[in-house]
Amino acid sequence: MRFGLIGAGRIGRIHGGNVAAHKGTELALVADADAKAAADVAAQYGAKVADIAGIMADKNIDAVLICAPTDMHSDLIEQAARAGKAIFCEKPVDLNADRIKACLKVVNEAKAPLMIGFNRRFDPNFAALQQRLHNGAVGNVEIVTVISRDPSPPPVSYIGRSGGLFRDMMIHDFDMARFLLDEEPIAVTAVGSSLVDPEIGKAGDVDTAAVLLETKSGKIAQISNSRRATYGYDQRIEVHGAKGMIRAGNVHETSVEVATGQGFTGDPVQNFFLERYANAYRLELEAFINAVEKGVAPAPSGEDGLRAQLIADAATESWRAKKRVEIGA
Amino acid sequence: MRFGLIGAGRIGRIHGGNVAAHKGTELALVADADAKAAADVAAQYGAKVADIAGIMADKNIDAVLICAPTDMHSDLIEQAARAGKAIFCEKPVDLNADRIKACLKVVNEAKAPLMIGFNRRFDPNFAALQQRLHNGAVGNVEIVTVISRDPSPPPVSYIGRSGGLFRDMMIHDFDMARFLLDEEPIAVTAVGSSLVDPEIGKAGDVDTAAVLLETKSGKIAQISNSRRATYGYDQRIEVHGAKGMIRAGNVHETSVEVATGQGFTGDPVQNFFLERYANAYRLELEAFINAVEKGVAPAPSGEDGLRAQLIADAATESWRAKKRVEIGA
Amino acid sequence: MRFGLIGAGRIGRIHGGNVAAHKGTELALVADADAKAAADVAAQYGAKVADIAGIMADKNIDAVLICAPTDMHSDLIEQAARAGKAIFCEKPVDLNADRIKACLKVVNEAKAPLMIGFNRRFDPNFAALQQRLHNGAVGNVEIVTVISRDPSPPPVSYIGRSGGLFRDMMIHDFDMARFLLDEEPIAVTAVGSSLVDPEIGKAGDVDTAAVLLETKSGKIAQISNSRRATYGYDQRIEVHGAKGMIRAGNVHETSVEVATGQGFTGDPVQNFFLERYANAYRLELEAFINAVEKGVAPAPSGEDGLRAQLIADAATESWRAKKRVEIGA
Amino acid sequence: MRFGLIGAGRIGRIHGGNVAAHKGTELALVADADAKAAADVAAQYGAKVADIAGIMADKNIDAVLICAPTDMHSDLIEQAARAGKAIFCEKPVDLNADRIKACLKVVNEAKAPLMIGFNRRFDPNFAALQQRLHNGAVGNVEIVTVISRDPSPPPVSYIGRSGGLFRDMMIHDFDMARFLLDEEPIAVTAVGSSLVDPEIGKAGDVDTAAVLLETKSGKIAQISNSRRATYGYDQRIEVHGAKGMIRAGNVHETSVEVATGQGFTGDPVQNFFLERYANAYRLELEAFINAVEKGVAPAPSGEDGLRAQLIADAATESWRAKKRVEIGA
Repeated sequence: MRFGLIGAGRIGRIHGGNVAAHKGTELALVADADAKAAADVAAQYGAKVADIAGIMADKNIDAVLICAPTDMHSDLIEQAARAGKAIFCEKPVDLNADRIKACLKVVNEAKAPLMIGFNRRFDPNFAALQQRLHNGAVGNVEIVTVISRDPSPPPVSYIGRSGGLFRDMMIHDFDMARFLLDEEPIAVTAVGSSLVDPEIGKAGDVDTAAVLLETKSGKIAQISNSRRATYGYDQRIEVHGAKGMIRAGNVHETSVEVATGQGFTGDPVQNFFLERYANAYRLELEAFINAVEKGVAPAPSGEDGLRAQLIADAATESWRAKKRVEIGA
Repeated sequence: MRFGLIGAGRIGRIHGGNVAAHKGTELALVADADAKAAADVAAQYGAKVADIAGIMADKNIDAVLICAPTDMHSDLIEQAARAGKAIFCEKPVDLNADRIKACLKVVNEAKAPLMIGFNRRFDPNFAALQQRLHNGAVGNVEIVTVISRDPSPPPVSYIGRSGGLFRDMMIHDFDMARFLLDEEPIAVTAVGSSLVDPEIGKAGDVDTAAVLLETKSGKIAQISNSRRATYGYDQRIEVHGAKGMIRAGNVHETSVEVATGQGFTGDPVQNFFLERYANAYRLELEAFINAVEKGVAPAPSGEDGLRAQLIADAATESWRAKKRVEIGA
Repeated sequence: MRFGLIGAGRIGRIHGGNVAAHKGTELALVADADAKAAADVAAQYGAKVADIAGIMADKNIDAVLICAPTDMHSDLIEQAARAGKAIFCEKPVDLNADRIKACLKVVNEAKAPLMIGFNRRFDPNFAALQQRLHNGAVGNVEIVTVISRDPSPPPVSYIGRSGGLFRDMMIHDFDMARFLLDEEPIAVTAVGSSLVDPEIGKAGDVDTAAVLLETKSGKIAQISNSRRATYGYDQRIEVHGAKGMIRAGNVHETSVEVATGQGFTGDPVQNFFLERYANAYRLELEAFINAVEKGVAPAPSGEDGLRAQLIADAATESWRAKKRVEIGA
Repeated sequence: MRFGLIGAGRIGRIHGGNVAAHKGTELALVADADAKAAADVAAQYGAKVADIAGIMADKNIDAVLICAPTDMHSDLIEQAARAGKAIFCEKPVDLNADRIKACLKVVNEAKAPLMIGFNRRFDPNFAALQQRLHNGAVGNVEIVTVISRDPSPPPVSYIGRSGGLFRDMMIHDFDMARFLLDEEPIAVTAVGSSLVDPEIGKAGDVDTAAVLLETKSGKIAQISNSRRATYGYDQRIEVHGAKGMIRAGNVHETSVEVATGQGFTGDPVQNFFLERYANAYRLELEAFINAVEKGVAPAPSGEDGLRAQLIADAATESWRAKKRVEIGA
């Protein structure tokens, strides 16, 4: 299975490296508007530099990794689908839900395998939690709690084009809530404020937010986000069920603990998402490769991407309008 | 300081026993509609049986403990205030906010010391958390998270007269949120469902609920409740602040841990609220006694009781109307 | 059941208070060389002051609590046994094993119930561990590990008359090891040094020590002690067995945890043995009362006191002679 | 830097793979008595098959990885030293201390860089602990505690040629104790028994053991081993110092925890040493490469290998003779 990588930035390097390290797959072509970035990645993994059209046209390329800027995702997905490639695309498909729907129509018509990069589903801790939940470890799901906090906010310049916290950051948690609820949320209430950096507020976004999701049968998910956590990249999930509670906690830098008169102190949690989720990135690509090789539909699918986006859109509206919003279909 | 106890039920015995065990205070009189209950408690602690009027009229009684049914609370508070007693009253003052306001007017006119039994503020873990928070341990408060789950639901017969989950159970968490936010919530959004026992739903209440609170400056509190937790009485609080995070966890039955091929297993959390909060009940009464002796206003005050009730009312309306509700003043 | 208390010092007050608070028992008489101390305790618990002879001679006294200095223990036990009293005596029976044997002969002849105050067996955590161990939670015991560290050393003046660390401090751990091994140790190897305070070394003792115990069937216990732990009174036990591992950990001051860039910090462990073992003191006296009331032999028994002393003697010799020593019978 | 690998078994594959994956180093030649094993490893990492003489004679080979059976180690080290290679050798240098001394003499005369594979020093948790200890986190070291337990015993056939538990298994803990004590142990007392499998006892070895080490200044180390732990590969270290305590705990399979009426259950610890110490193996090889490239002496050195062996020899004698044994120089 030969891959073409589109986008040789930070996340493109991760996926490219995982393809190159995986037995039986090859990183063959790399494209990036920044020729040097493309050349660097290509050299590191024994690939060749190409342009997007070249990747799409190359009959020896079986799959594409779309790691380009967000506003290119849906076009690239359509091109790749029409070119008969299997497609792995970083989230989101697009910031506009109608655009996503149109794109998925093309994908469906082309019967192209498409996987969206909600990497957290593949974190070994969260994946094990979901598996045990699915196997009935705590009975029927009643309340899902997701706590997700970044170490520090992105540049304010990025905030403006990010689609806002709900579409840029909390979308991961919306996907996680859907993954765990095993039922579609029908309504969302979001609150948010700018407590970390007033510049973020001036840019029209929030840096601190919490959300309630409701499903038809009455299951509840509560999510909270902050753009700043002094103690590291805080990533926790917990599910309360009829027969008990299951949770997966943070990953600390080491297991070292020091006890003095001031107390017992353990390490901060891992600070950098690429370190925290290194295994998740590797395992999601394995899952994509396995699905394509076996001819089954990869998950999370384009539809999963759309559902998370619809929740994010509704959350954004809820926050702005200060009211509960029903999630679109 | 001599006490009269009104209500010799489960919680009345706790408070009566704490008064009797406290140096320098005496449980002198006990009243209860159930004469045997009054006699039992009186015998156990060396007190005498009386009726309510007798307690109110007795010039040697300095303080009353109101542990009677909820619908008697406000009348008893007014009587005691007019009789010049210091008053400790179990929560709530009343299920109706207007009735509370009228009652507090009487208390204020009489200048009677009044404390409402929000016992959790006095739990040594939660009190230490609030103290450190107040001292700046994590900087400005941004997100308060309260998880509170009972081991098992009360009888459905009780549900009907309880005022509903938000007024009966979550009111403790509303008080805790106010205690930790250090700013008044202005709006609430509540969701709830009946997942534990459909009979609770038929009785017009919920057994599973989550709430978002917002303050004017943008602080957020998220609270979730369940009427059933298989693993014990789940009581956790966490505060995310500008400089870090502070939390206080559950109290397990013992510190014993067993490791086998199935994993590492620690004990369930303490299951019974009277055991879990035994220290809190003792310490809240000490705080009441100290405040009265020093002539300072006890806290939590009647006003605190009113504020929590107003939030509970707004939450109940929010859940029913499926919309965000501004909290009354 | 009416008690006479001999010794109204710190530990005498604890036991006297527990007798007074226990339903169905009465603290009737209190004796102490320090008349004021005796009067204080008597006044606090509604008892009368007496002298030792008076307690022994009083036919209405059913049981004595011996909390006098160590060098009086064996004489008082003998007197009480001959006077037909049930006897609770603080550890040790005596610092000399032969004296203990002679004393126990008198107790046995008088058929007097005798319990020695190895309080840690009654700590709810350690008692639960032993119970589960006994019920087979981890199969046959193979390695017992006891870590026991005091917050700070006693005055050097006390060290000289204490019998040394192995007889004064580690004797509790020898009893705990016997309690958990369920088989008598036959040999001991002890190492020790004076690292905390050189004055302790000059006084002929150690402040840092570790011991290996062996049983006939090959079970092993390892114990370590320090006279100083900056982080509180460190009390941990762990048992490795054929089917798993069971342990009981420290008791922290609160469950509060603070997370910042420096890490996650929980509280120090409870610092003071009277606080850490408050429940253990209460429960051991209940066990004594229950045994006497039911007419069964109390445990830990005088024989348990002797066994621990013989191990402490052998450990002291092992440390001094720098060799493995077989434990006397 | 080009490597020759001698021994293409389980551990040889690990080191070979780490050399191949490391930037700037190459696995060039692979030798093994089993031609197929050598060919497999060579093919996997792009190396060629060779014999030992060929590796030693090849001027383009800068370093050798000795992963052959223990009884070949010292001969191979000498050959490699004389051939001017940098040498990484799995522990132990030899089971006979005199043979080690002779071997190290050759190494010293040849001025060959030599590192012994005490991998645990490079585990990120233990390395961080040692670093903080070295930086004074808990003051002067007083008591080192090492708990080390394998998931299950090796075949009895292996036991006979292993040199016994103290030389085969506990030698890692002796090295760790030396690493942490920062002072040479001068005496050892060992106890041991065969509780896991009587066949191990019949083969002249123990499967359960504990040891006390003493340094000249009075520091103490206590180590315990079992060949069987149902809950995984148990690897813990703890250091008690003048200013506090520092410890590093086990690594669990995931962070998932399930709470039910039976309690709170977390995962077993990682079961397989190659998984548990995967990072340690990678980091120790990096340390070797860095040392050789910078021309500094690698650590742990051959002298470290000798010191651990001398302690293991003394421990074995102590266990057999049932006495404290001074450690040879």
